[in-house]
Amino acid sequence: MSVIGRMLYAHPDDPEGVGGKVSAAVEAADDCAHVCVVCADACMREEDAVDLISCARSDLDCADLCEATTRVLVRRTAEEDGFVSAVLEACAQACDRCADECERHAAAHEHCRLCAEACRRCATACRELLAVL
Amino acid sequence: MSVIGRMLYAHPDDPEGVGGKVSAAVEAADDCAHVCVVCADACMREEDAVDLISCARSDLDCADLCEATTRVLVRRTAEEDGFVSAVLEACAQACDRCADECERHAAAHEHCRLCAEACRRCATACRELLAVL
Amino acid sequence: MSVIGRMLYAHPDDPEGVGGKVSAAVEAADDCAHVCVVCADACMREEDAVDLISCARSDLDCADLCEATTRVLVRRTAEEDGFVSAVLEACAQACDRCADECERHAAAHEHCRLCAEACRRCATACRELLAVL
Amino acid sequence: MSVIGRMLYAHPDDPEGVGGKVSAAVEAADDCAHVCVVCADACMREEDAVDLISCARSDLDCADLCEATTRVLVRRTAEEDGFVSAVLEACAQACDRCADECERHAAAHEHCRLCAEACRRCATACRELLAVL
Repeated sequence: MSVIGRMLYAHPDDPEGVGGKVSAAVEAADDCAHVCVVCADACMREEDAVDLISCARSDLDCADLCEATTRVLVRRTAEEDGFVSAVLEACAQACDRCADECERHAAAHEHCRLCAEACRRCATACRELLAVL
Repeated sequence: MSVIGRMLYAHPDDPEGVGGKVSAAVEAADDCAHVCVVCADACMREEDAVDLISCARSDLDCADLCEATTRVLVRRTAEEDGFVSAVLEACAQACDRCADECERHAAAHEHCRLCAEACRRCATACRELLAVL
Repeated sequence: MSVIGRMLYAHPDDPEGVGGKVSAAVEAADDCAHVCVVCADACMREEDAVDLISCARSDLDCADLCEATTRVLVRRTAEEDGFVSAVLEACAQACDRCADECERHAAAHEHCRLCAEACRRCATACRELLAVL
Repeated sequence: MSVIGRMLYAHPDDPEGVGGKVSAAVEAADDCAHVCVVCADACMREEDAVDLISCARSDLDCADLCEATTRVLVRRTAEEDGFVSAVLEACAQACDRCADECERHAAAHEHCRLCAEACRRCATACRELLAVL
């Protein structure tokens, strides 16, 4: 189990039921946040940077949503109310949008290909958690 | 005009139409983020900290959403698509929830009273921007 | 007094002595964070974006440091130990570096000019607080 | 290799030399950020929350520094100048301070024990990277 998984189980609010899906969403959102920050920076450093600007901008938006989502989810208020559903929905949309953009450049840039994958995984994990809240 | 307002006008994407409401939402979300971080910390330092824990937790959730919203809005993709609406909706919900919690302690703690006000202002600013997107 | 100033005074740990300088540094770092996020995005949208990439990257680094500094300072642990000095020093360096970069483009781009000013103000505020800790 | 490791290798700036240590520091700082956010929340939910408040506060400071450090490091400006050294130093100090606090509660609370470990690992990784910059 990842260290975050172990932390969630060490938290006094037992994560029963949705615990595994919270943990999966945390890990997916966190990976996605950092992958997006790298992708944004890599895009700016490519020779065709000018064509990658929309990609860099959607990477940054996605990173910000994924970080906020990670923090909210690890705080374990996930089970408590509808607010978390709105956060997960916004995060999934940020991921969809960023993945769409990155996929356009996936053949040319490995960082965009990996980033699109991370975004799709995160969108899926957010929606799987949404489905059980 | 605030420095953020001037920056938004110095941005090459002219903010026509929604510009003023973007700027108002940025300022409200940013104030709210910091007020929430102070309120969370102040709650933990009060003698009745144990009774303020739900308040501190919703403060922290609200701060995280407000910060992400601020970053997304200043990035000026606000006018571009539906993703921003989902972010504003999640932020407004975080603010509603935190304001409800802080209002319960507003008579006893000035920081909770000020925080509830900042949350209400931010929720309103997010919804006013939502209405014109 | 700004809402953050009022919050710091409503906090149970009285800010005596350094209070005003904490508040000034919080406001300068927070302005700087958002100005940098706008400047980074504006740089990417300019016609000469390719020449502004170093600027956008140092803007983003500076924004991240300024946000972390703001959160640490509003949490009012500023008076407690040497850790805060290290944070202020890192923030001031991020600001110096970003200001140097933005000043190179200040004549051509108003957002870079405003950003350089915000960075200089923040570096000064961090160092004035450092001097009294 | 982790997805972040693969992203750093897909970045056009080749990470030669310090690449592995950047990646190790990114992973340690990122784990530490999230572990600290969980620990802060878990502390607030324990029956002895009142005794864990200093712990929760240093967790939050540490989380903020670790997140900023992660973002700066993944942005791959790590090799470029002295600013990154100041960030790593501030992060290592945040981790030391949080580990000291968490270790006081490690016997009573598994989340504090895991958090102290994550903080020590991150401080070490930051200093190992500092040593080769």
